[in-house]
Amino acid sequence: MNEKPLDYAASNGLIHRRHFLGLAAAGFTAVTSRDLLAADPANLTLPGWSRSPGPGPSEYGSPSRFAGDFKRLAPAASALQPGAGSSRSPLHLLQGTITPNSLHFERHHSGVPDIDPAGHQLVINGLVRQPLTFSYENLLKYPMTSRIRFIECSGNSGGQAGDRAVDGSAASLHGLVSCAEWTGIPLSFLLEEAGPLNTAAWISAVGADAASMGRSIPLNKALDDVILALYQNGEPLRPEQGYPMRLLVPGWEGNLNVKWVTQIKLTAAAAQFRDETSKYTDTLENRQSLQFTFPMGPKSVITSPSGQMRLPYAGLYQVTGIAWSGHGTIRKVEVSADGGRSWADAILDEPQLDRALVRFRLPWQWQGGEAILMSRATDSRGNLQPARRTWLDSMGSINRYHFNGIQSWSVTADGSVRNAFV
Amino acid sequence: MNEKPLDYAASNGLIHRRHFLGLAAAGFTAVTSRDLLAADPANLTLPGWSRSPGPGPSEYGSPSRFAGDFKRLAPAASALQPGAGSSRSPLHLLQGTITPNSLHFERHHSGVPDIDPAGHQLVINGLVRQPLTFSYENLLKYPMTSRIRFIECSGNSGGQAGDRAVDGSAASLHGLVSCAEWTGIPLSFLLEEAGPLNTAAWISAVGADAASMGRSIPLNKALDDVILALYQNGEPLRPEQGYPMRLLVPGWEGNLNVKWVTQIKLTAAAAQFRDETSKYTDTLENRQSLQFTFPMGPKSVITSPSGQMRLPYAGLYQVTGIAWSGHGTIRKVEVSADGGRSWADAILDEPQLDRALVRFRLPWQWQGGEAILMSRATDSRGNLQPARRTWLDSMGSINRYHFNGIQSWSVTADGSVRNAFV
Repeated sequence: MNEKPLDYAASNGLIHRRHFLGLAAAGFTAVTSRDLLAADPANLTLPGWSRSPGPGPSEYGSPSRFAGDFKRLAPAASALQPGAGSSRSPLHLLQGTITPNSLHFERHHSGVPDIDPAGHQLVINGLVRQPLTFSYENLLKYPMTSRIRFIECSGNSGGQAGDRAVDGSAASLHGLVSCAEWTGIPLSFLLEEAGPLNTAAWISAVGADAASMGRSIPLNKALDDVILALYQNGEPLRPEQGYPMRLLVPGWEGNLNVKWVTQIKLTAAAAQFRDETSKYTDTLENRQSLQFTFPMGPKSVITSPSGQMRLPYAGLYQVTGIAWSGHGTIRKVEVSADGGRSWADAILDEPQLDRALVRFRLPWQWQGGEAILMSRATDSRGNLQPARRTWLDSMGSINRYHFNGIQSWSVTADGSVRNAFV
Repeated sequence: MNEKPLDYAASNGLIHRRHFLGLAAAGFTAVTSRDLLAADPANLTLPGWSRSPGPGPSEYGSPSRFAGDFKRLAPAASALQPGAGSSRSPLHLLQGTITPNSLHFERHHSGVPDIDPAGHQLVINGLVRQPLTFSYENLLKYPMTSRIRFIECSGNSGGQAGDRAVDGSAASLHGLVSCAEWTGIPLSFLLEEAGPLNTAAWISAVGADAASMGRSIPLNKALDDVILALYQNGEPLRPEQGYPMRLLVPGWEGNLNVKWVTQIKLTAAAAQFRDETSKYTDTLENRQSLQFTFPMGPKSVITSPSGQMRLPYAGLYQVTGIAWSGHGTIRKVEVSADGGRSWADAILDEPQLDRALVRFRLPWQWQGGEAILMSRATDSRGNLQPARRTWLDSMGSINRYHFNGIQSWSVTADGSVRNAFV
């Protein structure tokens, strides 16, 4: 064994990322050696599943029955608002950056419509030279493009703007963000076919759900990089993600990514839909509200160790989490184990894509004492994820949208990990 | 409408890729205008799914009941070899580059074991200083990394090395390739913990399936970039992909990516397992066999239009497909519509990752006459996907493994698309 010492990159046990590939030699064995057994083949007994053939190939696979904890956090049904609510991706369990389709977070305003694409249509009208109606079959003929992009509800992490650090997991506190490869038609294709009039400055996008959920999007953005998405990670959109079609509005708040979209109307002004007046606005300390604050700021969350976990031993751990920004790529993620007094650069795993989740990792030697783990992201425009207090100072204590303050996890001497405000 | 003329990049209707974002203005409307209706809001009737709330969020989502054709091509069960066989990803339907977990191709030699991870162990033994046994729980503590990588069965497309162009789809002919984000432990961590002796040159990896499927991998590769994968697109491996653990051997033939791996034995020489002697070898014209021909060559397949489809109208189409190489990234994909006499560069969609699927696209004006569509990939090492005949000349007509010759799709005047040998 190579016994070279570890280089520490920040206080309280954060190890320099250059050790990522050298830790096995440098001491990572400490994590597991007490559980390791010298393998004696004579002691190996074949388990039942190795003794007789299993079932053959199938048409559509399912998770193992032993992986039952990989579920979205879904609330009980609401009697007052049937179908409304959200489910959260199990961020504390997921790995990598792609969210599998069955676990992408949900936010519905009147439940999931069971749409037969043969009976669904997309209308483009309003301030256009030629109003158009498209069938699903029709749209499948159009040129498409693919993008791996995150979608984050602007209400994600909103509880962290409150005055009490609620006990919760990375999933329950931050699980309204997911990432997938979306494929569809650049919306500019369809808008140009209809021919926007010079007076058009916004689009109103409305879904076919019972809430007729609608949002206004500036026409410039719609012509820039918005996609009418038909596919999610290769297969058709899931019903809860807008089957048969939704908008993908890269980097902007999730609610704009209108699901089950059935009408796009070009207008001179924003429509002032319910969900851009009573909701999804940022009410400041002075009771004025910021409206149309679209891009999601740079953000990161350590997903392990994270809230409600318990560190089972003193020794080496891999701190890992996700980072993203609605403004571009992630340039850097830093990790602190001492509540923000010292910071170490994390490794950014591949891929590192524009407005997509990025996975970061850093080795950490937990000595068994108290620690406060934090992460902060810097994006390609140089925007730095703010401290929670800094966010509150600028965005007020009333607002619960667009929270991107730094998440702190406190670790106690017994290894318990808890949401903390510092 | 902008009426600027189209630039053609190759004969028989292939349009220069610079038009990708300009076709709506330049004439793509030809595809759909006859099906378009001027939208009259008075004629809009609300479908049933817009009139009452649907179900709320759920723990684990499923596809729409209207998307039933997105299934793997799975054969009937084999009575002679229970559980053995393969299923193919529906390449002709999928979009983008990520294969959803439920649709990743399968190849089993004795079916899918139903493994309880609590009863599974990984042994590392043989020419090591310290034999080790790892439990699943133990391995979850190790540092991990993520990679988006394709896996391709080396028997994929083997029928194209035969003497008759079998009528088939892109899926039935080439569907033994898929791509996912795999997360796990760099195998080098675990091997270094066991401590390879100087005499060790290979590893023997054996699965816990009833076939005890085993393969030999050079130790250098195992120490370089092989991952003990525990996760696939964020969630635990699916049972048919090796739950709870498999090898990911980037760029090399699929069979090496041993599923349900339970033993890794370090040896001085290859083990000569059944699946590296009687199978997965390249038998040449002179009856000699090449063994251990590991990397998968540069390859591409047009997935639309493709075999068994029918072009419904003369006009503009988007030709699209996937490309990959076991040697690195894809530098270029060219498309021909005249059987290889002229070629046009396709657009490579993002992401473009090392040893991962890449999606290519190119506009094509089908005039209603005969055409032969082909694609050929060039990888970052300058390797060019060979013509089918060139592949046969070097690899022989007996061998059915590692076929990466150019796929030709013939289009007849009635729009029928068929597998063709040219």
